[in-house]
Amino acid sequence: MSQEIKKNIMDYETVDFDSATCELLLLDQTLLPNETKIIRLSTAKEIWEAIYLLKVRGAPAIGVAAAIGLYVLSARMKTETFEEFYPQFKKAKDYLDSSRPTAVNLSWALNRMDKICLSHKELPLSELMETLKKEALLIKEEDTWVCKKIGEYGLTLVKPGDGILTHCNAGQLATSKYGTATAPIYLGQEKGYHFRVFADETRPLLQGARLTAYELHSAGVDVTLICDNMSAMVMKKGWVNAVFVGCDRVAANGDTANKIGTSVVAAVAKQYNIPFYVCAPTSTIDLSLEHGDLIPIEERNGKEITEMWYEKPMAPQGVKTFNPAFDVTDHSLITGIVTEYGIARAPYQESFLEIFKKKQEENIK
Amino acid sequence: MSQEIKKNIMDYETVDFDSATCELLLLDQTLLPNETKIIRLSTAKEIWEAIYLLKVRGAPAIGVAAAIGLYVLSARMKTETFEEFYPQFKKAKDYLDSSRPTAVNLSWALNRMDKICLSHKELPLSELMETLKKEALLIKEEDTWVCKKIGEYGLTLVKPGDGILTHCNAGQLATSKYGTATAPIYLGQEKGYHFRVFADETRPLLQGARLTAYELHSAGVDVTLICDNMSAMVMKKGWVNAVFVGCDRVAANGDTANKIGTSVVAAVAKQYNIPFYVCAPTSTIDLSLEHGDLIPIEERNGKEITEMWYEKPMAPQGVKTFNPAFDVTDHSLITGIVTEYGIARAPYQESFLEIFKKKQEENIK
Repeated sequence: MSQEIKKNIMDYETVDFDSATCELLLLDQTLLPNETKIIRLSTAKEIWEAIYLLKVRGAPAIGVAAAIGLYVLSARMKTETFEEFYPQFKKAKDYLDSSRPTAVNLSWALNRMDKICLSHKELPLSELMETLKKEALLIKEEDTWVCKKIGEYGLTLVKPGDGILTHCNAGQLATSKYGTATAPIYLGQEKGYHFRVFADETRPLLQGARLTAYELHSAGVDVTLICDNMSAMVMKKGWVNAVFVGCDRVAANGDTANKIGTSVVAAVAKQYNIPFYVCAPTSTIDLSLEHGDLIPIEERNGKEITEMWYEKPMAPQGVKTFNPAFDVTDHSLITGIVTEYGIARAPYQESFLEIFKKKQEENIK
Repeated sequence: MSQEIKKNIMDYETVDFDSATCELLLLDQTLLPNETKIIRLSTAKEIWEAIYLLKVRGAPAIGVAAAIGLYVLSARMKTETFEEFYPQFKKAKDYLDSSRPTAVNLSWALNRMDKICLSHKELPLSELMETLKKEALLIKEEDTWVCKKIGEYGLTLVKPGDGILTHCNAGQLATSKYGTATAPIYLGQEKGYHFRVFADETRPLLQGARLTAYELHSAGVDVTLICDNMSAMVMKKGWVNAVFVGCDRVAANGDTANKIGTSVVAAVAKQYNIPFYVCAPTSTIDLSLEHGDLIPIEERNGKEITEMWYEKPMAPQGVKTFNPAFDVTDHSLITGIVTEYGIARAPYQESFLEIFKKKQEENIK
C-alpha cells in the first residue's frame, strides 16, 4: 500500500541544473510520497507546466526553478546577436511569469535575470550566457543561505521540547535547502532539540501530508499528521508552543499571502494565545503593495476539491465549489515575520525598513 | 465519473422500520454520494457495526436507529417471561450503547427504551413489545418535530439572501427529517429565502462533501462546497452572515462537542464577528456534565487521514497521526444554542433551566 522511504529527502535536490545536458532538474512533487522521481526539462512549455501543475511549488523553489529554467531556455536559443536574443529572452521570461500569480518570487527571480541580462548586454552572447547561468545558480545558492539564516533566527523563538505546528509545505521541498518554516525545525533537530511537530495535511492538494510529513518523517523529526480542522484541538490541549508557516507574498503592512488555510490557523492561534510566525525570505516581501487585499489570489479547478486526485468523486456531481489556493493573513494576527536579516515585528512598515537597511549594509560589505 | 442525483434526498428516510419484516432500515451513508442504498438490519452485531462504521451517523439519527434497533432485537428474542427477557434486553442495550462514545443521544434513546420497558414490566410480553415499538417510533416522530421547531427558531436569526456556513452534516441525513443545522435552511428554502450556503467538506471522512453538499444540492439549495481551511477566506469576503452547526453533546455551561473542526470554525467566526449558532435538540444537552472537558472524545483510526477511503496512501508510511472525531467548542465562542423550545444564550446554565422548564410545561399540557 504505502511506499517505503528509501532515502532521506535531505539528500535530494528539490531544484537543480544539469550542466552536461543543460537541463532543469526537478524532484516531481506531485508524485510524492508514493514515488521519488527526478524530471528533466528543457522547453518553455515543460517548465511552465511544471510550475503550473505544482511539480515544483513553494515560493522560493519556484523562483529558483524559474531562474534556472530561463537560463536553460536562453542557452538553447539559436541567436547571433543581443538584438536577436533579447526579444526571445523577454518572451520566455513573460511566459514563465504567467504560470502562477501569487508567489512574488517567480517575478522576483525572473526580473533579477532580466536585470542582469540587460546590464550585460555589451558582452558577447557566449559570455552573457555564462553570466546568466551564474546568476541563476547564485539565486539557488543564496536561497540556501537565506533559509539557514531564517532557521537561526527562528530557533531563538522556541526552546527544546516545544510543540510546533506548521501548515502546507514551507520545507526543504519548497526551497533549495532547509525550507523556511521548517528551517528552525531542521536546525533544532541538529542540536537535539526534540521538537514535536504537527503538520496540517492542507487540503485540497495535501502538501502537508504528502510533502511536510514526508520530509520531516524522513529526516527523523517527531511529526504528527493532522487534518486542517484539528488545529484548535491540539492547541487547546497545550501541545503547540508556536506556529511557523511560510509565505508567498508579504505586503508592506505585514499582511501575508500563504497557502489557503493559513489565516484559519492564525485566528485559532490567537484564540489560544499561541505565537504565530511567518518565515519570509526578504524576496517575498513586496513593499510595492500597501496591504494584503492587493495581492492577487489564484483560484484553481474545483475538481481538486470534489475529486481526490481527479480519480474518485467525493461530492455530488454539479455542486458548486470555491477553490482559492491562498488566503491573506492580517498583520494583526502575526506575532513576527522571520527573515534572513532578523525578525520583523509590528509595526511592520518600520520593521521592514530596518530589515532592508540591514540587508543593504551587509550586501555592501 | 460522478453519479447522477436521481431523486431528492428528502424523499428518503434516513432511519426507518419495516414492520412486515421487523427490520431496521438505514440509508447507508458510507456509500453516498456515489450510491444510494437502503440496508436492512436485524442482528445486534449488524446494528452495532452500522453505528460504529458510520453507516448511520449524526447524533439524532443514531438515537433513533438505536431505539428502533433495540426494539427489533427485543421482538426477535425467544423468551417467555419478563425475567427471561429483561437480562437479554439489558445486554443488547449495553452492547449498542458501546458503539460510539461521544453523542449523548445514543444513551439517551436507549435509556428511554429501558425506562419504558421497566415501567411496563407487568404487561404480557407481547403487549410490552407493542409498547417498546411505539416508544421507538415515537422517538423518531419526535425527532422530526424537534428538527422542525429548531428550524423555525433558527430562521428568526437570519434573513433572506443571507450566507450561511455549516460544518460536517447536521442535515436530514443526521436526523429523521430536516436536520438540525440545516432545518433553518430547508424551512427558508420553502419560503423562498434564497440562502447561499457554504458547506465545509469536513475531513477526514468528508461528511460535508459527501452528505451536506449532496442533500442540499439535491434539494435545490444554493450550496458551495469548500475545504475546511477556506472558512476564513469566505468570512473575510463578507459572504457569511451566520454559522449553523449541529452538536453531539452540550455540557451544562454551554460547551459543545461536535464534529472535529467545529471549534476552528467558531474561532474564525469570532475573528470576523460572525454569529455562531449551535442547533441542539434538548436531548443532546447533558446537564450532568459541568463543562465540555468532561465529554468523552472518540479517537478513530489514523488511516482515515493517511489513506483516502483506505485505498491510496496520502502520507508517508509509518507517520504518526492524531484523529479525534470531535472537538469541544467553548461556550464563550457560541452566540446562541437553538433548541426545539427556544434559543439559549449566555449564561447558558440559566438559559437551559428556562428551556427545560418550558419543555416540562409544554409536555404537561
